Amino acid sequence: MKHYDVIIIGGGPSGIITGVTGKKQNPDKSFLMIKEEAKGLVPCGIPYIFHDLEDVSKNAMGPKPFIDAGGEVLVDTVGSVDIEKKTLHTASGQEFSFTKLVFATGSTPTIPTFIKGYDLEGVEYVKKSYNYIEKLKQRTDTAKNIVVIGAGFIGVEIAEQLAKHANKTVSLIEMEKHSLYRAFSADYAAKADVEVKASGVNLLTETKVEEIIGKDGKVTGVKLSNGETVDADMVISSVGYKPNTDLAKNAGLEINSHGMIRVDNYQRAGVEDIYAVGDCAQTIGFITGRTDNIMLASTATAEARVLGYNLFCIKVLRKFTGTLSVFSTEINKKAFASAGAIEQVAENANIKYVVGSFKDVDRHPATIADTYPLEVKLIANPENGEIIGGELFGGKSVGEMINIIALAIQKGITVYELVSFQFGTHPLLTTAPTKYVLIKAAEMAIGKIKTCKN
Amino acid sequence: MKHYDVIIIGGGPSGIITGVTGKKQNPDKSFLMIKEEAKGLVPCGIPYIFHDLEDVSKNAMGPKPFIDAGGEVLVDTVGSVDIEKKTLHTASGQEFSFTKLVFATGSTPTIPTFIKGYDLEGVEYVKKSYNYIEKLKQRTDTAKNIVVIGAGFIGVEIAEQLAKHANKTVSLIEMEKHSLYRAFSADYAAKADVEVKASGVNLLTETKVEEIIGKDGKVTGVKLSNGETVDADMVISSVGYKPNTDLAKNAGLEINSHGMIRVDNYQRAGVEDIYAVGDCAQTIGFITGRTDNIMLASTATAEARVLGYNLFCIKVLRKFTGTLSVFSTEINKKAFASAGAIEQVAENANIKYVVGSFKDVDRHPATIADTYPLEVKLIANPENGEIIGGELFGGKSVGEMINIIALAIQKGITVYELVSFQFGTHPLLTTAPTKYVLIKAAEMAIGKIKTCKN
Repeated sequence: MKHYDVIIIGGGPSGIITGVTGKKQNPDKSFLMIKEEAKGLVPCGIPYIFHDLEDVSKNAMGPKPFIDAGGEVLVDTVGSVDIEKKTLHTASGQEFSFTKLVFATGSTPTIPTFIKGYDLEGVEYVKKSYNYIEKLKQRTDTAKNIVVIGAGFIGVEIAEQLAKHANKTVSLIEMEKHSLYRAFSADYAAKADVEVKASGVNLLTETKVEEIIGKDGKVTGVKLSNGETVDADMVISSVGYKPNTDLAKNAGLEINSHGMIRVDNYQRAGVEDIYAVGDCAQTIGFITGRTDNIMLASTATAEARVLGYNLFCIKVLRKFTGTLSVFSTEINKKAFASAGAIEQVAENANIKYVVGSFKDVDRHPATIADTYPLEVKLIANPENGEIIGGELFGGKSVGEMINIIALAIQKGITVYELVSFQFGTHPLLTTAPTKYVLIKAAEMAIGKIKTCKN
Repeated sequence: MKHYDVIIIGGGPSGIITGVTGKKQNPDKSFLMIKEEAKGLVPCGIPYIFHDLEDVSKNAMGPKPFIDAGGEVLVDTVGSVDIEKKTLHTASGQEFSFTKLVFATGSTPTIPTFIKGYDLEGVEYVKKSYNYIEKLKQRTDTAKNIVVIGAGFIGVEIAEQLAKHANKTVSLIEMEKHSLYRAFSADYAAKADVEVKASGVNLLTETKVEEIIGKDGKVTGVKLSNGETVDADMVISSVGYKPNTDLAKNAGLEINSHGMIRVDNYQRAGVEDIYAVGDCAQTIGFITGRTDNIMLASTATAEARVLGYNLFCIKVLRKFTGTLSVFSTEINKKAFASAGAIEQVAENANIKYVVGSFKDVDRHPATIADTYPLEVKLIANPENGEIIGGELFGGKSVGEMINIIALAIQKGITVYELVSFQFGTHPLLTTAPTKYVLIKAAEMAIGKIKTCKN
């Protein structure tokens, strides 16, 4: 039975980054990664395989950085783990012992068993599997009428990409009032609806799929709550993901109410030398303090870096109190991003807040060519002015601007501090120095907080 | 003699923002702005008048937000100030008394009296004056051979813009080894040289202008230190700016060794109720702690906001220790940005530092269309890991990314914190979550700092 100092189960972003960081920090330790498929995918790149990237091979992500750092990789499935004896068995019959074990087992799409017809041929999922997505891409090439269920990020992005093909009719069905309504407040989510429709997608919100209908076991359409039936030769269900935790559960690890492996702030799974990272591991909302079900590659890699540094001794302190959700996307060449507690998140968690909003264009003066609109909302605590959330709508600059807000939230920066901060501006790159949008939004928030009268 | 609670001398960005912020915070107080020209300019937009914006009117900036807030404006020149009696006289013969006075008198181009021929007809400057720039634009329209002296931001940007006109030959002469060498380290400044040349500018570095030569009092060329003579029917001198402080000096205010009005952290000029903001006011380097001669609209507006809030009582604390220079520009569609202490700044100020560098492309996966290179350098204190500077080279996203670094510097964030921070990523907007460039550069910096062995 071969022994490794560290075994990582899973080869997605969190497994790779745990491996790369851990091995680089501990070059004398032996590291094995066990992953189910030889080839991997960039998770957030999957929707773009269906048009912009053209082919699944363009979105491949492998463990090469881990191998280059000196790690070993085995393509196999782990069948069982004994956390007492510190051993594991694989499907191919191999046995290994370990000093430390990392669960990086990821997540799989939720199967909508609550919808009749969910098991018809032609009902597909956005699985994070190279082999599956390779085949799905081929199938979409011949599909004419595609219905996507669920207008979260993956659903919106895949619908937008499929609608770029001239020969396809793409419908997107969402129960909630708006697309992306988990990540954006009503007015920003309404802008997302506009862009989804402008990209050629037939978006139906406040609409449920009552039944997926078929003939001879194959999908032919979907019946909606509004009474309509939409023709479909393919249905892509995109109603969420569930963490892969059967292996951990069977090994005796504690699973929380979201079905995720319970971990502490250093990704320790409650048993000495056993860790979990990424989609399978518990997250605690940064602002809400509640267990949450955030599953993002950016979050997963942040956890993995903390774990990789700290596997054998705590080198990098993790000072913050939870996982900050930072979302961004582009629809119809307009970018949307949010971070932390947006209005409805604050309301649901009973958090007092004020909103500071500002609109401009993303370059200056406004007469310059190729400007995009740029809108920002800052959500702040009215007691001390701390920034707890933000939303952005605009051009590509939004993708990095949201990280200014993310950093501000993580450092507990207040709107009072923000207005005195120094930011760089340039006509071709940003809003004007006289009305840099983040500062103006902070001023608007301050205006809503009672200050000293004078 | 009419009395105002606040009189602001100057109508540039710092004057306007002091006025808008101050009046909004104190709606019951009377505010007067005295400015020399009716129309104003967006300072950083001036170079773009010479091509992209096409006309000076496209780059106008007036005191409208101040007037809308209830401020009054007088177009006149202040001739003298009596800070004891709290009165001032204007060139047109008016006299006013004030409770509080703000010097926002700006800066004017340095006249290169050290170069023979500086006073020939056809030697021009990049003055922040609407009327002057309007005429200069007309003159450049007919000029064929233009020599720009000084490859700082303004010189580089104006040369790049002029070179976009097919009928012009534009040369840019710089004494230093590289263009933009005050704001970028040697390797980044060398990239700037490449882009300046690729934009069609004849760039000559490590070259001095020995003499501006002329015939009949008009410019005909420049004689260089390398022995060459370059034909010129126009020379644009862009060798720096000097603060406008004669008025303040004559009024008895203290002027520092950079010729700037000495102020404290709240812009108070050493005499009760007298303030200075913007280019005419002293700056202290955020990292170096030394008096500095930073003159940026972004810095000026940051000072003006602090002053505007705090004119009648300190409402917004200014906690930081000085002025952070944050630079950004775009040359030949490549963006460059820097913040804080770059390598040569750290060396000159005898600051210990390590550099963490990383390169990638600005979207992911790298196979996606329309990527730009993206390179980052983080400069950190090796004792505690605090980030003290940074540089970026890439596409447009660099314009907001530098503000992430700027915020990190202002909040004293360390490279250790940065690697555990959570950032948002998206294929069409940022680098991959597995190698977000700021985190990778922080990791590289950590690699150079001795950590606990294990």
